[in-house]
Amino acid sequence: MADKKLVEQITSMEEDFAQWYTDVVIKAELIGYTSVKGCMAIKPAGYAIWELIQKQLDERFKETGVQNVYMPMFIPESLLQKEKDHVEGFAPEVAWVTSGGLQPLQERLCVRPTSETLFCDFYKNDIHSYRDLPKVYNQWCSVVRWEKETRPFLRSREFLWQEGHTAHATAQEAEERTIQMLHVYADFCEEVLAIPVIQGRKTEKEKFAGAEATYTIEALMHDGKALQSGTSHNFGDGFARAFEIQYTDKDNTLKYVHQTSWGMTTRLIGALIMVHGDNSGLVLPPRVAPTQVVIVPIQQRKEGVLDMAYTLRDRLSSFRVKVDDTDKSPGWKFSEAEMRGIPVRAEIGPKDMEAGKCVLVRRDTGEKQECALDGLEEKVGELLETIQKEMLERARAHRDAHTYVARNMEEMGDILSRTPGFVKAMWCGCQECEDTIKEKFAATSRCMPFEQETLSDVCVCCGKPAKKMVYWGKAY
Amino acid sequence: MADKKLVEQITSMEEDFAQWYTDVVIKAELIGYTSVKGCMAIKPAGYAIWELIQKQLDERFKETGVQNVYMPMFIPESLLQKEKDHVEGFAPEVAWVTSGGLQPLQERLCVRPTSETLFCDFYKNDIHSYRDLPKVYNQWCSVVRWEKETRPFLRSREFLWQEGHTAHATAQEAEERTIQMLHVYADFCEEVLAIPVIQGRKTEKEKFAGAEATYTIEALMHDGKALQSGTSHNFGDGFARAFEIQYTDKDNTLKYVHQTSWGMTTRLIGALIMVHGDNSGLVLPPRVAPTQVVIVPIQQRKEGVLDMAYTLRDRLSSFRVKVDDTDKSPGWKFSEAEMRGIPVRAEIGPKDMEAGKCVLVRRDTGEKQECALDGLEEKVGELLETIQKEMLERARAHRDAHTYVARNMEEMGDILSRTPGFVKAMWCGCQECEDTIKEKFAATSRCMPFEQETLSDVCVCCGKPAKKMVYWGKAY
Repeated sequence: MADKKLVEQITSMEEDFAQWYTDVVIKAELIGYTSVKGCMAIKPAGYAIWELIQKQLDERFKETGVQNVYMPMFIPESLLQKEKDHVEGFAPEVAWVTSGGLQPLQERLCVRPTSETLFCDFYKNDIHSYRDLPKVYNQWCSVVRWEKETRPFLRSREFLWQEGHTAHATAQEAEERTIQMLHVYADFCEEVLAIPVIQGRKTEKEKFAGAEATYTIEALMHDGKALQSGTSHNFGDGFARAFEIQYTDKDNTLKYVHQTSWGMTTRLIGALIMVHGDNSGLVLPPRVAPTQVVIVPIQQRKEGVLDMAYTLRDRLSSFRVKVDDTDKSPGWKFSEAEMRGIPVRAEIGPKDMEAGKCVLVRRDTGEKQECALDGLEEKVGELLETIQKEMLERARAHRDAHTYVARNMEEMGDILSRTPGFVKAMWCGCQECEDTIKEKFAATSRCMPFEQETLSDVCVCCGKPAKKMVYWGKAY
Repeated sequence: MADKKLVEQITSMEEDFAQWYTDVVIKAELIGYTSVKGCMAIKPAGYAIWELIQKQLDERFKETGVQNVYMPMFIPESLLQKEKDHVEGFAPEVAWVTSGGLQPLQERLCVRPTSETLFCDFYKNDIHSYRDLPKVYNQWCSVVRWEKETRPFLRSREFLWQEGHTAHATAQEAEERTIQMLHVYADFCEEVLAIPVIQGRKTEKEKFAGAEATYTIEALMHDGKALQSGTSHNFGDGFARAFEIQYTDKDNTLKYVHQTSWGMTTRLIGALIMVHGDNSGLVLPPRVAPTQVVIVPIQQRKEGVLDMAYTLRDRLSSFRVKVDDTDKSPGWKFSEAEMRGIPVRAEIGPKDMEAGKCVLVRRDTGEKQECALDGLEEKVGELLETIQKEMLERARAHRDAHTYVARNMEEMGDILSRTPGFVKAMWCGCQECEDTIKEKFAATSRCMPFEQETLSDVCVCCGKPAKKMVYWGKAY
């Protein structure tokens, strides 16, 4: 019975995408629900994905000179209030600590929803001279936002993330770092997660509380909804003025620093599920698959079969490889491996052994092929590369096929009601038009992409002269 | 002026060990103070040590089958209260969240001081059959304990750690895992941190709140005080009974699981400082040194010197190596490298280049030697191995030289007042004698070591028949 849990039928994504998502999250054993409302337990299969994300993202950070640090998880109320827009944006969704060690606190502390204020308070004391700049710090931690509606990975009261916080001598350097980190995010999504993204700038309405400019990468999920997958903010000197972060420049005058912040979260695991998953469960790109190859022995009680499976495992040790030597039937093992999204399944039985071969099965396409045992290491390596590459191509094709152009509100309504996806449309730059589109179609401006096109001369909503092409969409 | 900060004279450890410690922590730029009382900011030089600790400890965990997970940071009050001894131990030092998202909470949540209750709540739902056992989970996270007096790394209101939580079918398996993880900790301290430790069991008075047995590793600091450096607890089935964690065994009967937990913290960085540091600053064992080799160019403006420094850096790229190419004087660079505890300094100038050699200086002994550039890679590798090995030997010699035997209270008082260190003494097993020793000498029982000796037949305190040899000491 215990075996069955994993491979019970899951809801099909065509029938009910939200239920399919929940089924996959639970059946692939990524999370467990907890007694703490809105908070999840990330189980080994889920956390192992996060570790692979962390490791590869952190390496990319360090290549650009990022240094990791750790700041406190509490923010005194007076500190949170120093930057006006920032506190307005976050105060409504924070958790407050009011007593510690049996005593009421003299000042409430909020549990960090994000750490701009803490980094500013730190930089204020740590930055004196132009020699102290730039500071390019990052931390990996958890943050808390008191969400009313929560969904595993996509929106939870506590989530894991990284938050980079930098300080620079000039506005230009800050802007360059903001864009640089957005590019790091975009490359990471495409090369590691096999998720293509649109890079662009958020509108004033959608930008981060306290930022001068917010840049974003936006991905399209299988159901045609958008997912904001990473953001990078340029604060200008706004926080520096609020927190008095000044340095003595080479010309011996006091100047304010210019700051940025940028973050990515466990929500990326939600993106992996919704971009690549299918009705058999999770489909993981090889670079973030905790197990890349599962070896399933066929007729494993026959002499030599299990030994051969272990031999192959040892030969494949440059990959993340496992033998499923449990006493379940091969059919169960196949279904389990599919549910967990393991990229390659290798089947080896007595007949294969006689013929000096095994069978390799791709999780992403279901394609089977025989492979001579002689060249197995090379073949598996190539196959994993191919899978990684083709998963990105398929996701890109899906996104492109679900990216539409709307020239007027009727077209926009048609598209968004019929088959959700990205809608490219011109915009005049007014928040009123954004509000109207949100009200009518429940769609928001996702970003003003760096790669602009001129689809028409006028705003899709009000008909006034257009300033920008915008990606619109329904979003998670 | 900015250069000077790092190399100002620090207080000597003989004059004021506590002030020396604080000076090193600040001058080596390991931490910064924050506006959040009792919480520290871990700066890049400090966090990089923690990353090296994490990486190497995590690898050792995984070799023993540990899987990483992540549990919520909040514990509902009712959950904390389920195990009586546990709540009594921790409730007085927790921080309480009482409102979230502008609303008062219906039930207070404490910020985890440790996560036994959360793991139990999780295991209760996740463990059904003997097939689900063992569970060998760990998480890396921060925890909060509302301490009154705080010191960087040694005792702070928030600190980073790992906490392993396991569930087993039998009492024997739980005890084996408890001891196994203690051995992992001891090996890690000796092989990676070059800190020798005493392994043993805590007395009833000193054991963890809710545990059946607590095991500990105890290290001796340079000032003769003890530091509890890691603990491993066997809970028996106490938590399982409180939380109703049962499984169906092979014989189809319901049984309670047996549990363990074990943890190590950022306090290890404090131990590194106090075991290895000297009056020039930090001394890091090569395996946890963020920079293992610093190359200092001499007369760096002379043609070819900087290029040679970069060439050597590239040749030494299998180590963690840096060139100090700032415009500071070589003397400043030496002092800075010493303050930061970099194990090897390589000096290269025009004369060295002519002679085809460089100068290597050990941080731990100050010893200088010339080294032909031809065999530099091998030489540096050997030197780092030698330093790692000899730092452990020196720390062990210091510990052994400060381990004393006391046969009666007079001897014990003499030792502890004259020159603190470990005091080995026999004990009858009564808490009253522990209380008396604490009251008289401010010393506590550190552990009942696995390696027992018979120093005499009677308790050092009451003179009644002795049951155990105990290590006593003043402790951080």
